[in-house]
Amino acid sequence: MTDKEEFVVTPYEVKGRIDYAKLREQFGTQELSASILDRLQQLAGGELPPLLTRGVYYSHRDLNLVLDQYARGHPFFLYSGRGPSGPLHISHLVPFELCRWLQEKLGVEMYIQITDDEKFWARAQLTREESVRWGYENLLDILAVGFDPKRTHVFFDSRSIAALYPLAIRVARKIPYSTVKAVFGFPPSTNIGLVFYTALQTVPCFYPSWESGRATPCLIPCGIDQDPHFRVTRDIAEGLGYPKPALIHSQMIPGLLGEGVMSTTGNEKDNALFLNDPPKVVERKVRRAFTGGRASVEEQRRLGANPEICSVWALWKTRFAPDPKEFEQITADCRSGALLCGDCKSNLLEKVHAFYRAHAEAREKVRDWAESTIITRAPKPD
Amino acid sequence: MTDKEEFVVTPYEVKGRIDYAKLREQFGTQELSASILDRLQQLAGGELPPLLTRGVYYSHRDLNLVLDQYARGHPFFLYSGRGPSGPLHISHLVPFELCRWLQEKLGVEMYIQITDDEKFWARAQLTREESVRWGYENLLDILAVGFDPKRTHVFFDSRSIAALYPLAIRVARKIPYSTVKAVFGFPPSTNIGLVFYTALQTVPCFYPSWESGRATPCLIPCGIDQDPHFRVTRDIAEGLGYPKPALIHSQMIPGLLGEGVMSTTGNEKDNALFLNDPPKVVERKVRRAFTGGRASVEEQRRLGANPEICSVWALWKTRFAPDPKEFEQITADCRSGALLCGDCKSNLLEKVHAFYRAHAEAREKVRDWAESTIITRAPKPD
Repeated sequence: MTDKEEFVVTPYEVKGRIDYAKLREQFGTQELSASILDRLQQLAGGELPPLLTRGVYYSHRDLNLVLDQYARGHPFFLYSGRGPSGPLHISHLVPFELCRWLQEKLGVEMYIQITDDEKFWARAQLTREESVRWGYENLLDILAVGFDPKRTHVFFDSRSIAALYPLAIRVARKIPYSTVKAVFGFPPSTNIGLVFYTALQTVPCFYPSWESGRATPCLIPCGIDQDPHFRVTRDIAEGLGYPKPALIHSQMIPGLLGEGVMSTTGNEKDNALFLNDPPKVVERKVRRAFTGGRASVEEQRRLGANPEICSVWALWKTRFAPDPKEFEQITADCRSGALLCGDCKSNLLEKVHAFYRAHAEAREKVRDWAESTIITRAPKPD
Repeated sequence: MTDKEEFVVTPYEVKGRIDYAKLREQFGTQELSASILDRLQQLAGGELPPLLTRGVYYSHRDLNLVLDQYARGHPFFLYSGRGPSGPLHISHLVPFELCRWLQEKLGVEMYIQITDDEKFWARAQLTREESVRWGYENLLDILAVGFDPKRTHVFFDSRSIAALYPLAIRVARKIPYSTVKAVFGFPPSTNIGLVFYTALQTVPCFYPSWESGRATPCLIPCGIDQDPHFRVTRDIAEGLGYPKPALIHSQMIPGLLGEGVMSTTGNEKDNALFLNDPPKVVERKVRRAFTGGRASVEEQRRLGANPEICSVWALWKTRFAPDPKEFEQITADCRSGALLCGDCKSNLLEKVHAFYRAHAEAREKVRDWAESTIITRAPKPD
């Protein structure tokens, strides 16, 4: 980085300090405005979750159109996914938590794609056995978020290829190599699997329309880094006779060490809270987490701390203080100096441990039906 | 063409007057020598077919190694394929006829790949419905050549993808885009399906080894234009723990109008004898076929004709005069002027019509079991 203003965001690389307003401009997406959130709240008939009210989701493409259609009696479906290269960390749950809320409030179908092929192609060190094993482990974590077994469908790429491939053939013909090169910044050494892959990531956007023979709108909650995939999808959708998928984009969740985004790829594993971390490891990571605190207790009591740069505050914001009053209080006490970082971390750890226990329990329960959600056959002859 | 010596041969383009000796040098393949043919004759225990004795097959890679292993009790398997973009013409049968002979004489397994995905990607005008329909039609024609139902296995790409994909994932990671760009000469506008495709064409080479857990040698009879696909395969085989496939290459069969090779892509449909041509069309095409005859009967009686440039003689050579004595007689009478082109064509037409009748009958018989040869499921979990 020669300039702190420089940053790079693609599905395969996130680096630098991201200016999210500028990124939205660069990508050409729409702002998630108060009026569109009001609209969603009316349709859902209740309070919006913190992920929507606190600016984590901040951008969209055509969400208004999808909500208009829903209001007229044409439900959309949800699609999100995961590239399994290791254990999930809690920030990976962000799109799935929004999906779960939307499914519950609006009664819509959910499609999850586990891209064990893509991750094998993208990571030279990963074995096939690892990408498949992590695919199953990650799927259990995702389903444990609380999806409705009857309305949830999974493409586990290597096992679902018979269902995905008929559409993938049609999609792939529409995408020239030059497009994926430009959109993803692939060098010539990129393997041909990864070059092809975006075709498979596009398929779920069209699958329900294809299967039913009826145009069915798609809404994709995802990190803004995944937007390029779906820009390609949106460009070709109408040429294939399908509606363009709509998107709702989240910012990237900061890492615990205050270094870039929470990620599984960095060397510093303490930067993320993994869902398979034992309680002692969770405790150590939170205790070591970067905060907006001052150099001394005295100074902090006097000047207060800075939540905006604090990784612990980011955790309160995104998940662990759903009650708006509680969250306001934590924030105010942080700024005033009434709440010291050590105490704040102790409070957070109680919530985190409780979350981990509840998640582990839910995860055991989904084992019984997880397999039944995986689509393994073509829905109709090609 | 600025120079008549220039020619281009790739799996996606054949143009110019091919210098086959030079092409073998360019590609770096071995000559199909008298000694290796003797070896094959010994193992097969009988006469070699005209395709082998008359120079149609003229080049190979590692055929000697495959025969050595066979002699030591380790059978190879055969693999050939077809990209279904329209009806087969009789020259398309050349690799399958060699396979049939090898299967019959050596008792080996045969794998056929029908690449309905590749042809859809390679031909912008082709619909999916057409590529699938031609896939089935072509498969019937191929099986009608006389394969053993118990030893013949078909990958119909769009229907066999669940079986092909686990290996394709592993293969694709080994092949950088830069390799396919260089080998196939793809421009940046090439769609990502076609970029990926060579991974799927490689899979059958390794499939029996993967399925059985035992290294199983592969022999691929094919037109020399298909060699580049398998050069890529050979380069990556050992890195994946599989034997390099061996190849035996044929020259391209000349078209009926003396223009380039017999092909389905030219505008001039009269250049090829399609297997679905009705007898009247066959008659017309043979009557119009380019020969090595003279301007007048008188001149031909006096000077004789030139079989080397004659498309009718090429048909006698490759298929319609299997008896060496008969073939020598035809050739001698042509050169001497004793046999005029019109009479030669009448003689040939009798054989061609008989061949079409027998083929149509065989084709009806294979309908009963064709479906059972298609591999539709993964042989084991990934």
